[in-house]
Amino acid sequence: MAIRYPNGKKYQPNDLLTSTTQKKTVSYGKRGMSLEQDLNDTNAYYLTHELAVIHKKPTPVQIVGVDYPKRSSAKIKEAYFKTPSTTDYNGVYQGKYIDFEAKETKNTSSFPLSNFHQHQLTHMEGVLKQNGIVFVIIAFQTLGEVYFIRFEHFQPFGNECSMAGENQ
Amino acid sequence: MAIRYPNGKKYQPNDLLTSTTQKKTVSYGKRGMSLEQDLNDTNAYYLTHELAVIHKKPTPVQIVGVDYPKRSSAKIKEAYFKTPSTTDYNGVYQGKYIDFEAKETKNTSSFPLSNFHQHQLTHMEGVLKQNGIVFVIIAFQTLGEVYFIRFEHFQPFGNECSMAGENQ
Repeated sequence: MAIRYPNGKKYQPNDLLTSTTQKKTVSYGKRGMSLEQDLNDTNAYYLTHELAVIHKKPTPVQIVGVDYPKRSSAKIKEAYFKTPSTTDYNGVYQGKYIDFEAKETKNTSSFPLSNFHQHQLTHMEGVLKQNGIVFVIIAFQTLGEVYFIRFEHFQPFGNECSMAGENQ
Repeated sequence: MAIRYPNGKKYQPNDLLTSTTQKKTVSYGKRGMSLEQDLNDTNAYYLTHELAVIHKKPTPVQIVGVDYPKRSSAKIKEAYFKTPSTTDYNGVYQGKYIDFEAKETKNTSSFPLSNFHQHQLTHMEGVLKQNGIVFVIIAFQTLGEVYFIRFEHFQPFGNECSMAGENQ
């Protein structure tokens, strides 16, 4: 017997939800958020169970103006997003350094490498030279598929991308 | 012969500068900035010479309001500082995970452990359990002395501090 939760929405049995049309309308909008949420949940699990300590870095921001209405709550009134100089995630697993970047695309057959900033690629190269564990996680939102690629395997394509960029 | 740089200031010979009074007025103001600058310079040197990849994490900020006057330059018009959940610096040296916090004090005989947030101590404990290399750098601005303390040696005091905090 199916339980109908009182969320105000009309009940949809599961077999309807798995049809292609329903899938499109139901789940795609949220997939953009869910990779980051999935990674945050995973890292929280690792942290709680003492398996690894991995954190997402804060968004880099250039702070220009700050108001101090009360001493306890400074309000930033002017700031700008800065280009990140590293990947978004790093941490430690059994003494080893872990570093990765997570990206999403709505493409279905390819991932545009221009989504990586040149200094992110440079950063990952640097980590690899220091024998860190470095990889990318690429989520194809439309396909609902997520790929794990070690930077060693990803790097040759990254180089092509940066060379193409230089020739433009 | 001493060279008198034309900086508009009255010339002070070196032996005067080393007297206690002069030392106080001349150098203390800038020491607050210089620990972070020293660490940034050191990390830049390590990066350039491929000795290590260590970065300062961006200041964590809760972004509330953003203006988009032009597509290329989003302006953050309301944001607040968040309490950091980790230390400020981390990175990799020969595959090993490095993690540290740098703090400064104007005290001359002690360092108040309340300068560390409880979750920073918790974070450092977690890193230690994962066999990461974790330490603190404490600069006594007034003394001009900088100390390196591995978290293993620092931790017992940190625990006392947090226990004292809980009893309050």
